[in-house]
Amino acid sequence: MKKEIMVLRNILESNEADAAVNRDFFTRKKIATVNMMSSPGSGKTELIGKTIDILSSELNVGVIEGDICTSMDSERLASRGIQVVQINTEPFGGDCHLEASMVKGAASLMDLGRLDLIFVENVGNLVCPAEFDLGVDSNVVVLSVTEGEDKPLKYPLMFRTCDLCILSKTDLLGVLDYNADTARMHVLKINPRIEIIELSAKTSSGMDGWISFLKNLVFIKKNSNCSRHTPAGE
Amino acid sequence: MKKEIMVLRNILESNEADAAVNRDFFTRKKIATVNMMSSPGSGKTELIGKTIDILSSELNVGVIEGDICTSMDSERLASRGIQVVQINTEPFGGDCHLEASMVKGAASLMDLGRLDLIFVENVGNLVCPAEFDLGVDSNVVVLSVTEGEDKPLKYPLMFRTCDLCILSKTDLLGVLDYNADTARMHVLKINPRIEIIELSAKTSSGMDGWISFLKNLVFIKKNSNCSRHTPAGE
Repeated sequence: MKKEIMVLRNILESNEADAAVNRDFFTRKKIATVNMMSSPGSGKTELIGKTIDILSSELNVGVIEGDICTSMDSERLASRGIQVVQINTEPFGGDCHLEASMVKGAASLMDLGRLDLIFVENVGNLVCPAEFDLGVDSNVVVLSVTEGEDKPLKYPLMFRTCDLCILSKTDLLGVLDYNADTARMHVLKINPRIEIIELSAKTSSGMDGWISFLKNLVFIKKNSNCSRHTPAGE
Repeated sequence: MKKEIMVLRNILESNEADAAVNRDFFTRKKIATVNMMSSPGSGKTELIGKTIDILSSELNVGVIEGDICTSMDSERLASRGIQVVQINTEPFGGDCHLEASMVKGAASLMDLGRLDLIFVENVGNLVCPAEFDLGVDSNVVVLSVTEGEDKPLKYPLMFRTCDLCILSKTDLLGVLDYNADTARMHVLKINPRIEIIELSAKTSSGMDGWISFLKNLVFIKKNSNCSRHTPAGE
């Protein structure tokens, strides 16, 4: 067990070093970066697609897409004519999360001079991705209202690591036994400083707050050499 | 990287040995065991609760409940007056999955002479739990229809490891953009031998097939010294 813990510590320390490189790199390039994390099926790809549709007249957006295998999500997004780089973790042992080195490698394949904002869509997993700082400006957790109100209490590290929690698929609220106040209370119990936005990518209800959040992030990045947001794990 | 892979191999080999012990143990005790796996929020606890309500007049059912932290789910189930043992993985580094040794330890706390069937509710995670054989009779993956049709293709190991896939929350089908035929096709593409049951624990639609599956498992276990189902990872 001691050996396992030592190896895990080495992996996390090596990841921290790569994340610091990413942070410096994206700051110099003045590109805002957002790490999108969630359980499988919370609607991350749908949300990113709708977000790009709204932002495309003002901003150049790219996506680094993380999946164990398949390129289905990146194909969905690339059909919008944007830059998408797919990371498949299967050749690396089917990793259940992205690491900073993978993001670094993917970014090196992009035409960065043309980008204002990069979404990193992490592997669908509410546990392991939270342990790996990617060196981005903002960590966002998407929690579908279909998953129930208790998830922040059961998966606390994810909610502690993020600065925004999106409660997604709110168009389904009318047919669920779901108490939105309880969900918000649980999120804030784990992380009192986290922002919460309720939205539906399907109906566009609540998208305004999310778009403002992103525009603010891009504005700050363009006009400063410092990162506004606390990196994951700190 | 080589060191990491070696440590991972050691962990998995050690887990295999513990799983073999569990398999022999539960066979001798003639207790059927089912490992329930899924993303967070697929409705595993709700389904197990409703299943116990239906089976309680015929069978004695116990639950080994796996969570990173909290005992919310075990409290929900224990209110039915059944035996429930909670495993919290947080003291073990917040593990994102159960291991065979944890199940062995939990079973040792139960009054096994009074049980016909044990559900092991794994940590909500569609990736890592599939790598760890627990030495049970059946691995079951619960996939909520709210998660979309593509998950079997994106998380293939989970669907390869299981002998039953439950497509849950079918009461929501009327309000989702979801094609049940596509979902079934994707499940069977990954694992042509898997059984598929569509059900709603909320309305009880489709529960009959699931109850039959479990009764069959218990009957075989009571009347044989051999395990009918292929263990995970084989």
